[in-house]
Amino acid sequence: MDLKPNERVDDLQLNNLKIIQNSKEFCFGIDSVLLSDFCKSAKKQKNVVDLCTGNGVIAILLSAKLSKVKQIVGVEIQEYSSELATRSVELNNLQKKITIINKDLKNIKKDIQAGSVDLVVCNPPYKPKGSGIINEKDSKTIARHEISCTLEDIIKEASRELNFGGSFCMVHKVERMTDILTLLRKHDLEPKRMRLIYPKLGEPANLVLVEGVKGGKPFLNMEAPVYVYKNEEEYTDQIYEIYGMKGGINI
Amino acid sequence: MDLKPNERVDDLQLNNLKIIQNSKEFCFGIDSVLLSDFCKSAKKQKNVVDLCTGNGVIAILLSAKLSKVKQIVGVEIQEYSSELATRSVELNNLQKKITIINKDLKNIKKDIQAGSVDLVVCNPPYKPKGSGIINEKDSKTIARHEISCTLEDIIKEASRELNFGGSFCMVHKVERMTDILTLLRKHDLEPKRMRLIYPKLGEPANLVLVEGVKGGKPFLNMEAPVYVYKNEEEYTDQIYEIYGMKGGINI
Repeated sequence: MDLKPNERVDDLQLNNLKIIQNSKEFCFGIDSVLLSDFCKSAKKQKNVVDLCTGNGVIAILLSAKLSKVKQIVGVEIQEYSSELATRSVELNNLQKKITIINKDLKNIKKDIQAGSVDLVVCNPPYKPKGSGIINEKDSKTIARHEISCTLEDIIKEASRELNFGGSFCMVHKVERMTDILTLLRKHDLEPKRMRLIYPKLGEPANLVLVEGVKGGKPFLNMEAPVYVYKNEEEYTDQIYEIYGMKGGINI
Repeated sequence: MDLKPNERVDDLQLNNLKIIQNSKEFCFGIDSVLLSDFCKSAKKQKNVVDLCTGNGVIAILLSAKLSKVKQIVGVEIQEYSSELATRSVELNNLQKKITIINKDLKNIKKDIQAGSVDLVVCNPPYKPKGSGIINEKDSKTIARHEISCTLEDIIKEASRELNFGGSFCMVHKVERMTDILTLLRKHDLEPKRMRLIYPKLGEPANLVLVEGVKGGKPFLNMEAPVYVYKNEEEYTDQIYEIYGMKGGINI
């Protein structure tokens, strides 16, 4: 397989799955791996959509993590990222299961029918627009900041796609929790399950995994947390269980 | 000091403070102790109001925990509880610092001026109205269920009382987190600080401590969590540090 400049193939440590990444672009982090794992508890998982799929890491991981998955659609606005994702899908021979669409998620109503999806997943840009942006056209900036879409755009689109009882699973910065919960409820994706990620025991949390259920009734389950590091150098056993530790880690 | 039937005096393990409790009524739990401790980080703490003060445990603990406190007003709708609270205030010679008002918190606009308070504290009834209630007039039921006031009544009143930059600190069931965060934001008490309480390491959280700041800007800090039990029998060192372990514990 031919790689372009700065591209490499990483092993996903799961069913021999591989991913093509570009060291000059946004590489996936432990947040994507934790989110994929968090999705395993979603009730329905036959038809899946991964919004902001980037290089496709979550779509590829979910193809192996979800036992009942039939179809995964990855949506990515950036051309080069979506092209990387498409090549990784081919590298893993997953063309029958995973389709990558290179479109703005605000403009996919014709591609994905309303109420047709069981599970929508998203690892979105974490930072609000305007927070320390130097170049709005830089691909890494677009992956990290709400330039091409806001949190509400994503949640609104997820709600449109999901059928009744379907789940929206997301990872995000814990500092945005009030935005997340108010927007989920506003768009009829009641927060039902949450898991905090603490870098270390005895330290503040930095990330949150959350599941909203379309048409769900209020009652949030706060699951046991994830602790990432045991000490300065070592990951916890919990992390080793979820993830084989190879690949780019940049939470 | 004369006690009525079923009443006892408990040691609060802090500055020789005592509290009168009635074994047939709602006795304070570890949630009240954790909330009092959580309030220590609130920026302003001169004028304090404790809504739903019950037997006054939080008001009494705060008189010792907050170094800069001048005045604490405890508001309690139930007559016997507020009478217990008043007697405990006298028992501790705290009449100059703590005043107990036996009124419905929805009807204290004349007692507490709008924008006059630095810190409002509340350990509210946890359960929504209608969830398994047998007797709406039972005093323990009133302490546990939203019969006399709803979560929104409390948050609305807290917001009315607080001055700009003042804090509202509350403990609640984690399952109500979406209600809490949406209502805090709705009433201009932006959630700024949160701490989860996990009964044990590796288990789901059950309680949440939250601070909303009047007029604050969105950005939530998720503090390191509290773990209550080390094993089946022992509390964690963290709990021993916060609390001397004597008295009624009923989370």
